[in-house]
Amino acid sequence: MNLETFTLFNFWSSPLLATTAEAESSSLILAGVLLSLAVIYLASKAGGELCARINLPPVLGELVFGVMVGVSVLHLLMFAEAGEDGSHSLIMNLLQATSPMGSTTFSHVFEAQSEVLSVLAEIGVVVLLFEIGLESDLKELLKVGIQSTVVAVIGVITPFVLGTTGLMLLFGTPAIPAIFAGAALTATSIGITAKVLAEMQRLNTREGQIIVGAAVIDDVLGIIVLAVVAGLARDGQVVVSDVVYLVISAAAFFIGAIWIGRLLNPLFVQLVNHMRTRGQVLLSALFFALILSYISATIHLEAILGAFAAGLVLAETEKREELQRQVAPVADVLMPVFFVIVGARTDISVLNPFVPENREGLIMASFLIVVAIVGKVLTGLGVFGQPGINRLAIGVGMVPRGEVGLVFAAIGAATGALSDALNAAIIVMVILTTFLAPPLLRWAFSLSEESATTDPASLSGNISEPVLVESERLQSELVKPEIQ
Amino acid sequence: MNLETFTLFNFWSSPLLATTAEAESSSLILAGVLLSLAVIYLASKAGGELCARINLPPVLGELVFGVMVGVSVLHLLMFAEAGEDGSHSLIMNLLQATSPMGSTTFSHVFEAQSEVLSVLAEIGVVVLLFEIGLESDLKELLKVGIQSTVVAVIGVITPFVLGTTGLMLLFGTPAIPAIFAGAALTATSIGITAKVLAEMQRLNTREGQIIVGAAVIDDVLGIIVLAVVAGLARDGQVVVSDVVYLVISAAAFFIGAIWIGRLLNPLFVQLVNHMRTRGQVLLSALFFALILSYISATIHLEAILGAFAAGLVLAETEKREELQRQVAPVADVLMPVFFVIVGARTDISVLNPFVPENREGLIMASFLIVVAIVGKVLTGLGVFGQPGINRLAIGVGMVPRGEVGLVFAAIGAATGALSDALNAAIIVMVILTTFLAPPLLRWAFSLSEESATTDPASLSGNISEPVLVESERLQSELVKPEIQ
Repeated sequence: MNLETFTLFNFWSSPLLATTAEAESSSLILAGVLLSLAVIYLASKAGGELCARINLPPVLGELVFGVMVGVSVLHLLMFAEAGEDGSHSLIMNLLQATSPMGSTTFSHVFEAQSEVLSVLAEIGVVVLLFEIGLESDLKELLKVGIQSTVVAVIGVITPFVLGTTGLMLLFGTPAIPAIFAGAALTATSIGITAKVLAEMQRLNTREGQIIVGAAVIDDVLGIIVLAVVAGLARDGQVVVSDVVYLVISAAAFFIGAIWIGRLLNPLFVQLVNHMRTRGQVLLSALFFALILSYISATIHLEAILGAFAAGLVLAETEKREELQRQVAPVADVLMPVFFVIVGARTDISVLNPFVPENREGLIMASFLIVVAIVGKVLTGLGVFGQPGINRLAIGVGMVPRGEVGLVFAAIGAATGALSDALNAAIIVMVILTTFLAPPLLRWAFSLSEESATTDPASLSGNISEPVLVESERLQSELVKPEIQ
Repeated sequence: MNLETFTLFNFWSSPLLATTAEAESSSLILAGVLLSLAVIYLASKAGGELCARINLPPVLGELVFGVMVGVSVLHLLMFAEAGEDGSHSLIMNLLQATSPMGSTTFSHVFEAQSEVLSVLAEIGVVVLLFEIGLESDLKELLKVGIQSTVVAVIGVITPFVLGTTGLMLLFGTPAIPAIFAGAALTATSIGITAKVLAEMQRLNTREGQIIVGAAVIDDVLGIIVLAVVAGLARDGQVVVSDVVYLVISAAAFFIGAIWIGRLLNPLFVQLVNHMRTRGQVLLSALFFALILSYISATIHLEAILGAFAAGLVLAETEKREELQRQVAPVADVLMPVFFVIVGARTDISVLNPFVPENREGLIMASFLIVVAIVGKVLTGLGVFGQPGINRLAIGVGMVPRGEVGLVFAAIGAATGALSDALNAAIIVMVILTTFLAPPLLRWAFSLSEESATTDPASLSGNISEPVLVESERLQSELVKPEIQ
């Protein structure tokens, strides 16, 4: 059936029927979202499977194939941002070909579709963090809490100081933009790191728990740095009260959520045991996670922190395994939306060295990338009292910057504080740390595996935690066939 | 912590930082959606559990509690439609209290939040129909295909003729509005019926399969009736080519999807067996379902028909049980969004008999409800060649009108064809058939159970299908504790 046939019978879009037009616009939005999800799942599985076969972390494939279907290459997944009006979106053009629409409807459908997909992606990372919380061990996290804090603090200070001073001394960048770029170097993308750890079944190792703890603290620190830098760009001064408010609210939120959550845990178990309708465990748990996510978003932390706290709390109930089993398919459906869209939104044209305007940015980017990696890898050295631990893996686990760095770049560009070259350099830094981290992390963990098998002495420090070592062995058994 | 503290530290919404404002609006949309989902899950479980305890179908509780949190009572879930600007939405007011926003941001956040929730609800019913397809048996559906067709056709013609002529003769309604109201009486809401059948574990009975088949055909017939009536309202004449196009495209779509799907089934199984990354079965199946949903939406059928066809096809593979297990939690998470929102959107103020303007509508509504129920219950009589079948249950299964009837009312109101009273009468008819059908259906099925246990002769007709009778017995064993 050719396109004209569709147009000929397009009786829905009569101008007389206002409500039909509205109904049509909502059915077009749905059609666009359904098709976008199909593209996302195709990209996610094609990229993931390819990477699994060439011994790279599947999430890297999701990101790369996201780039392929996104703004940089195929223009299937496009978003209403940065002046994009949807006219380059292949999906929008396809919808337009089968159901011709006026320009108002067209832009409404495009914007609504972007909005829905963006929120789905954000819900995806909320569910991911809930799942990571469920798989984490609160006691173990608290046990390595000081190490995590040290890693997080070093991992914020080192790249910030190195980046800011380096830009000022080597490139002669003025103070404000240098501070902006330094700030963009600070915050780890917990989503990427946690996904890679989960894929490698390394979440429950001490290294994994230190990384997750540090990434969560890092996220809070990143929000504080953003507040400071935004205040600096706005008023030229640091608003101390903002910083104090954020530190206190973050601490109060985590302590409160975990304390109240543990008090309510027996009630939760009793409640779901008495419920008779389908999905009672999952929906009750998600209700708790949604409320905590909402609260953490409302007090200007991030929704993902609430979801993580909810997962941590519920992991302590007897429903943990049932929940993990039920959350897994939901996460399978929502997480690819996040990872593929992160890739799809990434405009890799700034990486082209043949465009003369890109060169200055690329040179600065090389510097920022070195600082970004070195500054985070050094954090592993801060881990104390944990003999035999893989310090390199911890440092590498903190490398990916992901979306947080892009927020800094966007704010910097909007305030005019950043030059085009420096803005591009930050974007390149974010792209490369995000894309390099998964294979680097796998490589760093494989090193400790080799030393563990060749050097039995390296296990001696683990004697105090036999259960964990057991599970680590189990996991390395499981992972080996993929790694070899 | 009081509200002023939040306002004081609301450093995100500085007018200088355009991108921060954009980031804030997107974080507010996310916060609003998360809180709305929490409200939806609370309403869904509270209503569902209550109904399960007082021996009513849980989905009825989801609908009723949806009404409670929606536009009629608590104003928590409100939607940007019918002139609503969000100023009455409690969730929007809460967001506004914690993060003050300008009126542009406010309405953008409200509209985006409505849009996201509406699409999630629509995806919810897409997933529901995919699940219903998976649980259905294509061979059994084809075996009762003629019965389903007869039921569907009678169920469209009877209420249409009775409703239209009744309104013209009894109420002196002019022809066009009478035809509109008659048309609104035709289409069964497959979502409500299928959910109740699944809850009662009656999907795989012959009655269940006839109802599902008839409801699907009814959906297509409803689309055709809508096209005819819309054409009539617009041009005063029936566009025959539209009708022919719809009939042919619906038939071609179903035959094509099922034929190609069955050809591709072995490939699907082989492919997912070779895949190594998480969620491969679920995502590959959803990819297929999404593509079919997109196609069916594009050719002006409905997305849910594509999802149903995909489920039917995949039910024939060896992956059926694995898929059912994995789809269940996804459906648990998405379906309540649909049912609670159907309730939340329902404005029950038209039901208030103390408002004088409502009375004329309520009298017409009483007539329409009688026609709506009688017209569909009669369809059971059309089932032939199935001795011992519960004809009453089949007829009652076709009663709920749900959202389809509301679309008719909305179009009728928009074109000015319907008087306010008749418009209100259609809305009341849709509300009551939707809310009455679940308990009626449970009652109708309980009758056949009693006769089955007291009158062994009624089973004699089933001898030719021993497997099905076995499963019916198993199901009635399972259901009994709830029904007694």
